[in-house]
Amino acid sequence: MTATLIDGKAIANQIKQEVKAELQGLVAKVGRPPGLAVVLVGDDPASASYVRSKRTTCEALGLTSIAHDLDASTDRGTLTGLVRSLNDDDAVDAILVQSPLPPHLDENEIVNLIDPAKDVDGFHPVNVGKLLIGQDSLAPCTPLGVRELLVRSGVETRGAHVVIIGRSMLVGKPLAALLMQKAAGADATVTVCHSRTRNLAEIAQTADILVAAIGRAKYVTADMVRPGAVVIDVGINRVEDPSATRGYRLVGDVDFDAVVEVASKITPVPGGVGPMTVAMLMRNTLLAYRRRCGV
Amino acid sequence: MTATLIDGKAIANQIKQEVKAELQGLVAKVGRPPGLAVVLVGDDPASASYVRSKRTTCEALGLTSIAHDLDASTDRGTLTGLVRSLNDDDAVDAILVQSPLPPHLDENEIVNLIDPAKDVDGFHPVNVGKLLIGQDSLAPCTPLGVRELLVRSGVETRGAHVVIIGRSMLVGKPLAALLMQKAAGADATVTVCHSRTRNLAEIAQTADILVAAIGRAKYVTADMVRPGAVVIDVGINRVEDPSATRGYRLVGDVDFDAVVEVASKITPVPGGVGPMTVAMLMRNTLLAYRRRCGV
Repeated sequence: MTATLIDGKAIANQIKQEVKAELQGLVAKVGRPPGLAVVLVGDDPASASYVRSKRTTCEALGLTSIAHDLDASTDRGTLTGLVRSLNDDDAVDAILVQSPLPPHLDENEIVNLIDPAKDVDGFHPVNVGKLLIGQDSLAPCTPLGVRELLVRSGVETRGAHVVIIGRSMLVGKPLAALLMQKAAGADATVTVCHSRTRNLAEIAQTADILVAAIGRAKYVTADMVRPGAVVIDVGINRVEDPSATRGYRLVGDVDFDAVVEVASKITPVPGGVGPMTVAMLMRNTLLAYRRRCGV
Repeated sequence: MTATLIDGKAIANQIKQEVKAELQGLVAKVGRPPGLAVVLVGDDPASASYVRSKRTTCEALGLTSIAHDLDASTDRGTLTGLVRSLNDDDAVDAILVQSPLPPHLDENEIVNLIDPAKDVDGFHPVNVGKLLIGQDSLAPCTPLGVRELLVRSGVETRGAHVVIIGRSMLVGKPLAALLMQKAAGADATVTVCHSRTRNLAEIAQTADILVAAIGRAKYVTADMVRPGAVVIDVGINRVEDPSATRGYRLVGDVDFDAVVEVASKITPVPGGVGPMTVAMLMRNTLLAYRRRCGV
């Protein structure tokens, strides 16, 4: 067997076009486009590159990107003051503070300060709680992207056994919360595995849908995958590669070349889950805007 | 094999004595005992009985029970007004609104109104969110009770595979959140099963620790339990029994007589998880008091 590729880039583009189309009627009604404030503190090159991509996607789809680039030495008071003023700004529907913050700033404090209605990353405890309860919330973008990839690839989640490897708050835990709900595109039996899991291979083999989000290059090998399973690779790891222009290349948490022969469907890295995160950020911004403006 | 019984009544008593002892030093320091407000709306006999047990346990341990018994016809404004006044009352450390409310009242609205610092049932989205994130919170009493039974019976959760049958917000979902954390008395591989799960028996058999919280009498049969597994029965179901004084008796979600021959440890019903809920409510009240008073 050779697995079908799940084309995250194509699906992400489709979602972005949907957001763009949906916006056109709404902007006339509300009188302004949705506003996404993206706050970047410091000059980490990876963060800067993510932020750039979020901002240019905003502009391309007709959302207003509100940029706040702060110096790495920004003090607590300046950042909390900025978040408060963005909370109070009626033209700002969504606020994202790019992670990681410099070590002298408390990331939890900042996240807890964001108005939950504008918390487009879905990291505020109120939104995380609503996600687990099953109430309307803003959910984290990467788990939303994983669910969307499954749904749009025709993978039935209802009653399926989803095994998630990794328990981060970026992916594993919120994805488990999302997929165990009694809801469309969910209703799965969910197992969360992690570094302490015994018999990981054995448990992974019971999965109809296997999600790798552990942050280790090629961690999931072919013997861990049941023939015919769907494999979603959330990992993005740099491995040295002197032949590459940048000196490295990106690989996922899945040993793609071997697993592609066993799985029925699989996401590539890059071009799988990666592009979905920004697309779902745009959809979350649209959702926050709709709720705030009642349209 | 015949399983060892996990004596929930004895463990609950032990916890209650610990709370009582811990209180003695604190009350002198703070100048008043912890106050738990228990609000009962209507005259459902089961609710009335639960509330009675909570209040008498308070008194027995030296906590102040603040009783508010409202008529079944109580309107929304009266109940929300009461919750707000309890939020503002400095002598109230913990607030519990007994569920279920009469159908004309919105349970979510009331829960969301309770000050999260006094939300001793742990149902407020902020507390649920912090539970999943792994931050200090007030967690729901029954899942806390299940964890405590495991810990005090010497059952190692770290790396163990816990299979939870049931995804309610009272038990299944918060228990999963609790046990998947990287923390002492947790750190388990967690699977959540439910009514839509395919091959439930097969998945249940992979459990080192099997938790039944599905609300169906004797649902878990011996063939679903791996020999040597630990079985925690959260169910409390009434089955008709003409020979019983009350015309019914209480049975769990586990077919006890058969499963006791397969499991290594098992909780009985009654006398297993049941008594733990009130004990953990007392401990949560003490915790809210300590945090509020800084002692």
